[in-house]
Amino acid sequence: MKILVMKFGGTSVADIKKLKNVAIKVKRNSKKYKVVVVLSAMAGETNKLQKYLDIVSEKSSYSSDLVITSGEHVSVGLLSIILNKLKVKSICLLGWQIPIITDNSYGKARILKINNKIIKNYFKKNEVIIVPGFQGISKEGKISSLGRGGSDTTAVALACSLKATRCDIYTDVDGVYSTDPNIDKKAKKIKKISYEEMLEMASLGAKVLQTRSVELAMKNNLVLQVLSSLNNSPGTFIVNEKNLIEKEMVTGISYTKNEAKITISGIPDKPGVSSLIFGILSDSNINVDMIVQNISQDGLRANVTFTVQEREMNLAKKILEKNRDLIDFHYISTNADVSKVSVIGVGMKSQSGVAKKMFKALADLKINILAISTSEIKISVLINRKMTNKAVKKLHKAYVL
Amino acid sequence: MKILVMKFGGTSVADIKKLKNVAIKVKRNSKKYKVVVVLSAMAGETNKLQKYLDIVSEKSSYSSDLVITSGEHVSVGLLSIILNKLKVKSICLLGWQIPIITDNSYGKARILKINNKIIKNYFKKNEVIIVPGFQGISKEGKISSLGRGGSDTTAVALACSLKATRCDIYTDVDGVYSTDPNIDKKAKKIKKISYEEMLEMASLGAKVLQTRSVELAMKNNLVLQVLSSLNNSPGTFIVNEKNLIEKEMVTGISYTKNEAKITISGIPDKPGVSSLIFGILSDSNINVDMIVQNISQDGLRANVTFTVQEREMNLAKKILEKNRDLIDFHYISTNADVSKVSVIGVGMKSQSGVAKKMFKALADLKINILAISTSEIKISVLINRKMTNKAVKKLHKAYVL
Repeated sequence: MKILVMKFGGTSVADIKKLKNVAIKVKRNSKKYKVVVVLSAMAGETNKLQKYLDIVSEKSSYSSDLVITSGEHVSVGLLSIILNKLKVKSICLLGWQIPIITDNSYGKARILKINNKIIKNYFKKNEVIIVPGFQGISKEGKISSLGRGGSDTTAVALACSLKATRCDIYTDVDGVYSTDPNIDKKAKKIKKISYEEMLEMASLGAKVLQTRSVELAMKNNLVLQVLSSLNNSPGTFIVNEKNLIEKEMVTGISYTKNEAKITISGIPDKPGVSSLIFGILSDSNINVDMIVQNISQDGLRANVTFTVQEREMNLAKKILEKNRDLIDFHYISTNADVSKVSVIGVGMKSQSGVAKKMFKALADLKINILAISTSEIKISVLINRKMTNKAVKKLHKAYVL
Repeated sequence: MKILVMKFGGTSVADIKKLKNVAIKVKRNSKKYKVVVVLSAMAGETNKLQKYLDIVSEKSSYSSDLVITSGEHVSVGLLSIILNKLKVKSICLLGWQIPIITDNSYGKARILKINNKIIKNYFKKNEVIIVPGFQGISKEGKISSLGRGGSDTTAVALACSLKATRCDIYTDVDGVYSTDPNIDKKAKKIKKISYEEMLEMASLGAKVLQTRSVELAMKNNLVLQVLSSLNNSPGTFIVNEKNLIEKEMVTGISYTKNEAKITISGIPDKPGVSSLIFGILSDSNINVDMIVQNISQDGLRANVTFTVQEREMNLAKKILEKNRDLIDFHYISTNADVSKVSVIGVGMKSQSGVAKKMFKALADLKINILAISTSEIKISVLINRKMTNKAVKKLHKAYVL
């Protein structure tokens, strides 16, 4: 019998009524598949727990993972009870019971190994397996958490380990859209998308799936489906590029409004400077996104521009200024008033003119491009934040999505 | 080095400020003792979880125990973090990690065995052990709960297993009083009380300690202390009767306002009838407290009066009426407007006149006694509920407490 992993996020299990709805979907699938259900905590719970940790200013430890993983015990226990009342046999298996073994980077642990044996035993008894998302057990035998959004990773990792037919990720949207429907009502649900495109969409703000989980699915060639827990429509399938019959030149337009631009002017134009700057930022756990470096006219001093999360801009500036003598630069300027807009599509690789069309569309709107970065399947530009919505709509139309 | 078990209830760990206060008390004791801390969930949490279980109408199962034990993970994790910031090394050990092995009566599991080995290993590393109250692991390897108030039992069981010097139960009152201070301002804190007296006080409404935990302490001759988490005053010590130098004739006056009286009239006056009636009630999990049986004048038909929890009165009536033919009675009458008032004291065994004084005091107030029951160390009477406070005050004065 085929195996299906079903994952439900916090809004899908927010109350008993929604959990009953989840149970009905599980029951239906349990007639066709051996089912593993992975649940997040009820909406709001993990935030509440995180607030406690913020008050005691704890970043990540075994103790904080014990706190932050407790919400999932409630949702899994309740679902099991509800399934039981629907005459569907089920068993809750916690991270330590399966076990899902992780390293001991508490707060952002990585899964090292999953044991299928206990799950398969319960499959033989025709029981639905219910697993709390986001938790594992470290090699030291202590509870660990996979970091926020980690329930997607739990679901995908279990699906890969069990060689499941598919992993369905239920959420409060009914799929991946060609752009944000809040910005452009003409946004369309994408039927099939490649892992690579989804990765670009996810990390660029179409926050439907945790990036790690998509990477893991890609590595294992596992079909994902993103779909709504509120209706019965099919969602968006995330598949291997080879399975896309018609490759769209551009699949979607995404954006992020939480970036900030930092420019360091007058750095020595010699090898090792970039490595030094980004090494310092990395050591302070600051994530850098786009990087653009211009060579100076005199060949001695250059500028480097990059983006960070807006909330980390001031910290990044402070850290760089502390290292002024080491890096040897003239000055730093910052701009928190920027957005990144991207066009994404695997078809881009084989078709030309995508970038040209993008720059033309933005020029028509008199939008100044502050930085550009490109990959094989996406082009991103940094623009003034207040122009974001206009730009997204214009691009969505330009590529006839 | 001596071992101390400290248990803090829900109101003592209700927020971060209170948890910091707990941490300071733990730190202080950790200089003199090897310390095990047992915590309840933050006040209100377990009730919230119970409400979910009520909505899905689940009584007790592994799944419901998974839900109901999750609150303690939050309080123990947070305390460990706070202790760490106070430079006190600590480790959270869950029920399954120690392990605290229970039977599989989920929802009201009984502890079968505690393994001291892991705890002793952490003692060697000078770590304070933090244990979530109320949870264990069944022989089947599933999380189990000890039932509401079970954290006291966890603390006492650990203290007995580790042969601790004492188990301190911190709560929101600073000890056991000679009666309810809300009713009589002259109520005094009792310095020392015997296990037996405490048992009578607890089951009669002075709800400071879970009955099971007192029984367990008595069996193991473990000294308990009930004290406040809000100040540094000594509390009430609960000890072996032999250690009470001066045995009070009457130690305290307790009462319960949640009883209801049921009278079954016209039952056959022959052997086996009581057994039948109380067997039926017991099978329906209805707890019966006082039982008074009067023989009928004609020697053929009798009446039996007993008390149940007020909230179970109607259910009890319904169940009995369903069995009318089997029991063979005339009619049932109920009265939810009653209270039980008790005088308690180990000295009673050796001194006479306690009952006489009680009945005299109540007669002075023209209070009608609806039923009487006695044990070696207590006398309880059932009276009209609206007379409760008057009766308690009068008795407190009569015995010069």
